[in-house]
Amino acid sequence: MITVHPARRLSIADVVREHRRSFADAVAFVDGDVRLTWTEFDERTNRLASALAADGVGAGDRVLWLGQNSVRIWELLGAAAKLGAMVCPGYWRWAAPEMAFAVRDFDPKVVVWQHEEIGETVAKARAELGEPAGVRWLRHDSPAGEDGYESFLAEGALEDPALDVDPDAALLVIYTAAMSGTQCGSMLSHRNLLAMGATGAWLGDIDHTTAFLSAGPMFHIGNYQFWGVPAFLQGGKNVIVRRVVAEEVLPLLAGEKCTHGYLMPPTIVELVKLNATAGHDLSAFRASVAPQLWQGTVTVDTSRFTANGGGEGRGYGQTEVTGFATTGGFGGSGLGNAGRPGPFVAVRIVAEDGTECAPGVAGEICVRGDLVHLGYWNRPEVNEHRFRDGWWHTTDLGRREPDGTISFLGTTTRMLKSAAENIFPAEVENCIEGHPAVKEAAVIGVPNERWAQDVKAVVVLHGPDQASAADIIEHCRERIASYKKPKTVEFVDALPRTAAFAKDYAALDARFGGGGYPGGETLGAGR
Amino acid sequence: MITVHPARRLSIADVVREHRRSFADAVAFVDGDVRLTWTEFDERTNRLASALAADGVGAGDRVLWLGQNSVRIWELLGAAAKLGAMVCPGYWRWAAPEMAFAVRDFDPKVVVWQHEEIGETVAKARAELGEPAGVRWLRHDSPAGEDGYESFLAEGALEDPALDVDPDAALLVIYTAAMSGTQCGSMLSHRNLLAMGATGAWLGDIDHTTAFLSAGPMFHIGNYQFWGVPAFLQGGKNVIVRRVVAEEVLPLLAGEKCTHGYLMPPTIVELVKLNATAGHDLSAFRASVAPQLWQGTVTVDTSRFTANGGGEGRGYGQTEVTGFATTGGFGGSGLGNAGRPGPFVAVRIVAEDGTECAPGVAGEICVRGDLVHLGYWNRPEVNEHRFRDGWWHTTDLGRREPDGTISFLGTTTRMLKSAAENIFPAEVENCIEGHPAVKEAAVIGVPNERWAQDVKAVVVLHGPDQASAADIIEHCRERIASYKKPKTVEFVDALPRTAAFAKDYAALDARFGGGGYPGGETLGAGR
Repeated sequence: MITVHPARRLSIADVVREHRRSFADAVAFVDGDVRLTWTEFDERTNRLASALAADGVGAGDRVLWLGQNSVRIWELLGAAAKLGAMVCPGYWRWAAPEMAFAVRDFDPKVVVWQHEEIGETVAKARAELGEPAGVRWLRHDSPAGEDGYESFLAEGALEDPALDVDPDAALLVIYTAAMSGTQCGSMLSHRNLLAMGATGAWLGDIDHTTAFLSAGPMFHIGNYQFWGVPAFLQGGKNVIVRRVVAEEVLPLLAGEKCTHGYLMPPTIVELVKLNATAGHDLSAFRASVAPQLWQGTVTVDTSRFTANGGGEGRGYGQTEVTGFATTGGFGGSGLGNAGRPGPFVAVRIVAEDGTECAPGVAGEICVRGDLVHLGYWNRPEVNEHRFRDGWWHTTDLGRREPDGTISFLGTTTRMLKSAAENIFPAEVENCIEGHPAVKEAAVIGVPNERWAQDVKAVVVLHGPDQASAADIIEHCRERIASYKKPKTVEFVDALPRTAAFAKDYAALDARFGGGGYPGGETLGAGR
Repeated sequence: MITVHPARRLSIADVVREHRRSFADAVAFVDGDVRLTWTEFDERTNRLASALAADGVGAGDRVLWLGQNSVRIWELLGAAAKLGAMVCPGYWRWAAPEMAFAVRDFDPKVVVWQHEEIGETVAKARAELGEPAGVRWLRHDSPAGEDGYESFLAEGALEDPALDVDPDAALLVIYTAAMSGTQCGSMLSHRNLLAMGATGAWLGDIDHTTAFLSAGPMFHIGNYQFWGVPAFLQGGKNVIVRRVVAEEVLPLLAGEKCTHGYLMPPTIVELVKLNATAGHDLSAFRASVAPQLWQGTVTVDTSRFTANGGGEGRGYGQTEVTGFATTGGFGGSGLGNAGRPGPFVAVRIVAEDGTECAPGVAGEICVRGDLVHLGYWNRPEVNEHRFRDGWWHTTDLGRREPDGTISFLGTTTRMLKSAAENIFPAEVENCIEGHPAVKEAAVIGVPNERWAQDVKAVVVLHGPDQASAADIIEHCRERIASYKKPKTVEFVDALPRTAAFAKDYAALDARFGGGGYPGGETLGAGR
C-alpha cells in the first residue's frame, strides 16, 4: 500500500480546527441553554481530549455513551478524533443486560452515562458487571459542583494535543440490530464520515448557513446522514433535541431558524397542527422529509434528495455503508426503488457463487468505496466473511434494473431451504406484490421432511376474491424460478406487524406452522 | 499507517466500471465524429490497458501525450487507472527542446503524439533525443489502416484487467511552469480527483445530466476542475473541443445541449455576437464564467461557484492542490478575495519560522487534505522541502482575514531582501493598492550595497497628482512593518504587462534599475 503523507491525511479533528479558523464566532452547536461557537467547541474538545488522554485513552481506545441526544456526543467525537479513539453512542433504551453486553463487548475505558430517565437501568447494568477494573464511569448530567463530565472536562488542558491521526481510523461506532439477535458495533472512520458529509452536502443542499434540527436518535446513522454530518462538515449549525416533544420542538425550529430537520411524519403532523394556532415564523425551514405533510406551512424542499426521491427520499443503505449507498438523487428516477450509487461508491449484485448477476437478476448487494465501514468491532470472523472478494457483502437482496438503477428487495438473512436450493422470501414477496390484485405479501417456510421446507405465501388482496391461490402461484411460475414459487397461499385481511412496523414473521410462523429454517448464523450479523 | 481493505479502495477505474453499470447506454464523451457510451468507453479503456500492459506498462509507469484536446486523453487516463499507471497531457505548444526535456524528465514508456499542427516539432524533439530505447511512439491521428493509436488499441483484449489499484497512486500528471523556470510534473492521485470531483459537483451543480463543453486546455488543471472531472464523476457527458473556434463551438454548444462550458471571455463575446444572427437554441446552457457577457443570450448560472464568487468565481488554487483549495462558494462572500476551504481541505497561513500567523498577518499559504497532490515527479528534494511539518507549502502569500476568509496576495517566489529581512512584493503591493488614490502598483528591489536591496514602488494613480510619494510611503508605514515600506516611489501611466497579462517585472527592473534579488531556487518550484 502507498504511504500517505500526513499533509494528505485530513481527520475530523482537522475539520474542527479549520472551522475554528474559518467560522470562529459562528454557532456550531445548540443544546438547551448551551450554545457553542466553533472556537468554544474546539477548545472544549481539546480539554476533553487532554482529560481522556490523562485517563489512558489513546489511539484505538473506546468511549461508550449511555444517554439521550446531547452535544456531548459531538464533544466526545471531537475529542476522540484528536486522539484517534472511538466513541459509541449507545441505545439509551437498552435494558440492563443489553447495556452490560455493550460494556463487555465494546470494552470501553470510559463510559459517560445519563442519570435522568435511565439512571436505574445503568445502575442495574453496573451491578451485573460487578464494576470491571479500568473503566471510568462519568455521569454527564451531574448537578453543578458534583463530580461528573463537566468537572472531568475542566481538568483538561486547553492546548490541542496536535497528534497525527489517520483518517482511516475508527471514530464513530454504531451498534446495529442483527437479524440473528447479536448486536455488532459497526466502526465508521473519519474518511467514511467525510465521504458521507460531502455526498450529503450535494444531496441536501447543505452549506455553512444550514441549521439542522438534530431530532433523530444519535445512536442511529440516519440522523448523522440527514443532515448532522453534512452540516458539521460545511461549518453549519447542529441544534440538538434530547427527545422529541412537539411543543418544545416548534419554538426551537423557529427560534434557531432551522433550515433542515430530522423529523418523523407523526411529529410533523403535530407540528403543523400546533403552528396553526401558534403562528411561528418557519420561513427558514425547508422540509426534508414528507414534504406533502408540510404543505401550506413551510416551503417544500427542492434538494436533490427529496426532489428526486419521490417525496420521502428513496435509496438503499445500512449503517455498514455509512448510511445510504444509493439514492434517487444520483441518476434521478428510474425503474429501481433505490436509485444509483453516489460518487464514492460502486455497487455490484452478486450471485451465491460470487459472480456478478446480470441486470434483472436478484442477488446480494455488495458495496465498494469510501463509504464502506471498517468492519464490526471485535468480530474478526464475521468481518472476514462479509469482506470477501474485495467487496462488502451487505446480506441484503437487490437487483440492477435494465436502466441501471438498483432495486432493494429485502434481506437475505431470512432464507428458506427447498431441497438444495436457497430461497429468499424478499424475492418471492416482491414477485407476488407485482400482481395487480395484491396489496402485500409475506413468505414463510413450512417444514417438509423430504424437501426441508415448502414455500407458503400469506397474501393481502386489495379487495375480496380478486385473485385465487392458483392465480398467485401461476403469476410466480411465469416470473421466477419454479422452485421459488409458493406451494400454498393463505389470504388474510392484514399482515401482523412488529413494534418497528416490519412484517412480523414470528407471528406468521406461529399462525401458519412455519419453521425448519436453515441456520443463518454466519450471515446473520447484518443490519 | 492503517491498512485499507480493498473494499474501501475506490479508483477512477472503479468509477468507469460503475458508470457502465449505472449509465450503460448514456453518452460519456463526444469528440468530433466520435460518440462513446459508458459501455464503449469502458471497453476501449480495457483494450487500451491490455495493449499498454503487453507493451510493459504497469503500476507506476508513465504515458506522455503530445497533442491537443482529445477524448484519447480520457481513454489513456481510464486505461492507466486500470493499471495503476500515470498519464501526462503535455503542453502541445512546447518547443522541441521543451518536449525533449519532458520526455527525458517524465521517462515515459509510451508517447502518444499528434501529427497535425505539431508533427514537425515532435520530429525535432525526437531527433534531439536520438530515439531513446524502450519508448514507443504512437501517432494518434494516423490515417485509417496505418499503424498508430487505433491499431494499437485494437490489439488489446476486451477483458477488464481487474487489478487492485490503490487510489493513492498517481494518475494525472500536469507540468506546471515554475517561477524559477524549471517545469515540474505535479502528480495527482485517484483520490485527489475524487475529492475534486465531489467538491466540484457541489460547487457547480453537476449531476448525470450535465453536458460539459471541454473547451479549455487539457494540459491545465482548470478544465478538469470546471467541470471535466465533476461531470465525469457524476456520469455526465464531456464534449471535447480540440481547439476553440467560435464558429465550430456554437453549433456544438447547441447540438449537444451543453449545460456547462470552459470558455474564456473573448470567446464568449464572439459566441454571443455570432448567435445574434445564427439564432441557435442555447437554452440548456448555464453560463459558468463571466455571466454578465451572456446576458440576454443564455440563462445566467446560479451555481455556488458563480453566485457566491462575484460573477467570475473567486478562490485560490494551484495545480498542486488539484485546482482551487478555497472558493467563494464555501462560506459565501467576506473580506478575503479567495473565500474559504471546502470540505476536504484545511488551510494554514505560516510565518517563515513555521508558526501559524494570526488573522490579518500575511504568510505562506499551506494546505492539508485530500486535494494535496503526491508531489512532483522526480523531484525528491523539492518535495521534502515543500511537504515539511505535515503541510503542503504553496509558495504563495496569503492572509486569514478577521472574518475567517482568506486573501491570496501573490507569490512568495518573488522576494526582496533588505538586510536580514525577506520582503514579498505582493504584500507591499496589496497594501499600496489599498490607498484610495491608487489604481495599481508593482514593487521591485533595487540593489543597495549595505542592505542588499531597497524597496521601490511603481504606482499608477486613478488621476494625476492624487497622491505623493510621501503619501504612499506614509500609508504603508501605518499598515505594514516599517522595513517593508517603499523607500522610493515612481509614478507611471500604466504598468507594463507580459503576454499573459501579468505585471512585467523584468521590464520594470530594466526601466527602474531593479536587481540584486536573493536566490529563490529551492522555493521556486511552484505554480
